[in-house]
Amino acid sequence: MANSDQNCYCLVCFIVSVALNIFLIANLCISRKPLSWSSRAAAEAEAVASISCSGHGRAFLDGLIENGKPVCECNACYGGPDCSQLLPNCVADADSGDPLFLEPFWMKNSGRSTVVIPGWHRMSYDYSDNSYISQELEKNIRKLHAITKNAVTDGRYIVFGAGSTQLLNAAVYALSMNMSSPAKVVAEKPFYPVYKEQTEFFNAKQFEFHGDASLLRNGTSKTIENVIEFVASPNNPDGNLKKAVLEGPSLTGHAGSRFGWAIVKDKDVYENMLKYKSLADSGTSKDTQLRALKLIKVVLEDGGRGIFNFAHKTMRGRWTKLNHVLSLSKRFKLQEIPPAFCNYSRTVRGASPAFAWLKCAKEEDSNCHKVLHHEANILGREGRSFNAEDSYVRLSLVKSADDFNLLLDRLKELVSKEEQKQTTRSS
Amino acid sequence: MANSDQNCYCLVCFIVSVALNIFLIANLCISRKPLSWSSRAAAEAEAVASISCSGHGRAFLDGLIENGKPVCECNACYGGPDCSQLLPNCVADADSGDPLFLEPFWMKNSGRSTVVIPGWHRMSYDYSDNSYISQELEKNIRKLHAITKNAVTDGRYIVFGAGSTQLLNAAVYALSMNMSSPAKVVAEKPFYPVYKEQTEFFNAKQFEFHGDASLLRNGTSKTIENVIEFVASPNNPDGNLKKAVLEGPSLTGHAGSRFGWAIVKDKDVYENMLKYKSLADSGTSKDTQLRALKLIKVVLEDGGRGIFNFAHKTMRGRWTKLNHVLSLSKRFKLQEIPPAFCNYSRTVRGASPAFAWLKCAKEEDSNCHKVLHHEANILGREGRSFNAEDSYVRLSLVKSADDFNLLLDRLKELVSKEEQKQTTRSS
Repeated sequence: MANSDQNCYCLVCFIVSVALNIFLIANLCISRKPLSWSSRAAAEAEAVASISCSGHGRAFLDGLIENGKPVCECNACYGGPDCSQLLPNCVADADSGDPLFLEPFWMKNSGRSTVVIPGWHRMSYDYSDNSYISQELEKNIRKLHAITKNAVTDGRYIVFGAGSTQLLNAAVYALSMNMSSPAKVVAEKPFYPVYKEQTEFFNAKQFEFHGDASLLRNGTSKTIENVIEFVASPNNPDGNLKKAVLEGPSLTGHAGSRFGWAIVKDKDVYENMLKYKSLADSGTSKDTQLRALKLIKVVLEDGGRGIFNFAHKTMRGRWTKLNHVLSLSKRFKLQEIPPAFCNYSRTVRGASPAFAWLKCAKEEDSNCHKVLHHEANILGREGRSFNAEDSYVRLSLVKSADDFNLLLDRLKELVSKEEQKQTTRSS
Repeated sequence: MANSDQNCYCLVCFIVSVALNIFLIANLCISRKPLSWSSRAAAEAEAVASISCSGHGRAFLDGLIENGKPVCECNACYGGPDCSQLLPNCVADADSGDPLFLEPFWMKNSGRSTVVIPGWHRMSYDYSDNSYISQELEKNIRKLHAITKNAVTDGRYIVFGAGSTQLLNAAVYALSMNMSSPAKVVAEKPFYPVYKEQTEFFNAKQFEFHGDASLLRNGTSKTIENVIEFVASPNNPDGNLKKAVLEGPSLTGHAGSRFGWAIVKDKDVYENMLKYKSLADSGTSKDTQLRALKLIKVVLEDGGRGIFNFAHKTMRGRWTKLNHVLSLSKRFKLQEIPPAFCNYSRTVRGASPAFAWLKCAKEEDSNCHKVLHHEANILGREGRSFNAEDSYVRLSLVKSADDFNLLLDRLKELVSKEEQKQTTRSS
């Protein structure tokens, strides 16, 4: 009996062990990806990404190296080796338009949005069709517009460029090339300063910056000829919806990639823009085009729902909170943007602008940028940068949650001081 | 006895099974890289790279898709789904300067040169120091010049751009900004056509293209003022060594990445170039900078020996073969480039130019480009493109081995026809 028990026990152990053998071998054969040359780079990228920066920063593969490892790059107002220290009295920087509000979306979707570029990727100047433009990327961009319904692409041409900055300059060159006299380049104020700076810097014989578009329209001249007008929609800084001619480059929030595209109706203009691109930089980096393709494919996977809902929810939330805080103020006024019909969601939706275009309502606050800087330690961008009055200031709402929360806290304090004064006065 | 034997046999099986389990579990724990979010992209990249194109092409991640998979992009004169068919009578294209001769080096070094870019990589416009330039990349570029000994970088500034195309234009703008009268932009012929085309296209009030530099030097004017001269070294097309002012962007052979840098002595010029960059495209793509960093790090790992020896051996080999074939011809003459001291290898080395600058020696062959095209089905770039005589033609030697071999075969045939004629005549 004892022997039989022992045998039975041994048999069970043996069976368990063999089962485990089978399981482990199957596991090895099935689930283990047979990665070879890419594994080193993948491990390196994951190691850097796993460096803890306390949720207030991140380490990058190309970050500064300390002790052989890239260091944390902290969000504004956070410091220390792991970004865990809140820095007191630091400025709330709402100047730049860094679209970091979308970073959490891409972090959550790392698995789908990562791209692996082997050392031998696309070493030629051209793609196989002798163009500087990836056909796959162009195809996916057309699909994207089909789902967002924000532009017609059928029968139109697509040009790639390094963000709107380069595409706008290319368009100015292309449009002015065959005009009978130098083109007058205009924009309606308030407008993004680069339109003016760029046109003046390139200083071509065939165009010149002519200032505010409304001056031209209100002028005595009956015919407005040889005019090129910059129209941004939503407008930067105030978020107004205008008739747009070029697509925004920050759709996915990847400002650092410097990738954008223009949809062009006229064949000559298209060809002149390609000529510009070829002589300016021989086309957009193939690495950037590969990455843009990957990101747009991720956006398309669920028909845009993931990213557009995330973006709207985040930006709408920020705008609502900001309005709430400033509704208590008589000193500061936010721009009003009425709800509008969204072609993508097929619903009327409340505004969710990228920038607050804040006005200091009191006459004594003639420089709103200074008021915010001195009284609340907030850094905005002054009205004059946008060819507008300095009673306006632009505050960026698209940066990280840390940036926005700090801005909101500082504004709350500022408004509560205003209320206190009011109470003191009336009591 | 039988029972004991059986027991013994069972025990051995059990021990083997347990040992196998220990081995498999250890293997699982130790050797398996704990890849998570990067594994999908890595597997995708490896799957595409493993598509067989018979050694005469390659499939890319962003290639055209057929049946859900990217298709092979074949080298010139190869076709079929796996590039295995040699296409008869196809043109030997020696026109473009695609530096594919370095592709085998990067294929061999895939493991070290791959880069993995997560979806959330560098979404801001700037790096953390508010610049458009990766500090790590700049540091590695300085190291690179220290080992190649081809430029002094101490006390000099470094500007990044989209290849030499953009950097040269930036330099022309920067240099001409503070001149008392419009700058005369010149280049000594033969010169690369983009210098002229670009200067004329941008058409700025402060500069104009003035033609051949030697005309200016031979002119009657005693003082040469407000002149900007393009100097390329080695010169394109003829490979002559001149005094260079800007660094070549094709060091690693990645023309498609559109990345280059300029080393600038003067602080004002440097700042004007940064201004240009900021208004032209708001800086070079962060994706491209990350990839350039990786590639330069690979070059530096062995002090440059791997890539520079590979490049010299390949290009020297091609030049030698080409000279051998053409030495038998009286009709075609190659440029002569004497051996020169190489700062990197510290030895005198034979030339290894990127382009053949071929001259049709006979008066009746006044258009050498046409002669090659009609008699040998070779496509070069005609002399007039470089502001030179059409008795010259430029042939690219930097493309793939397939391209070079086809070019060489066609030239051999052409030269042997010449010999046959000679023999017929003299017999």
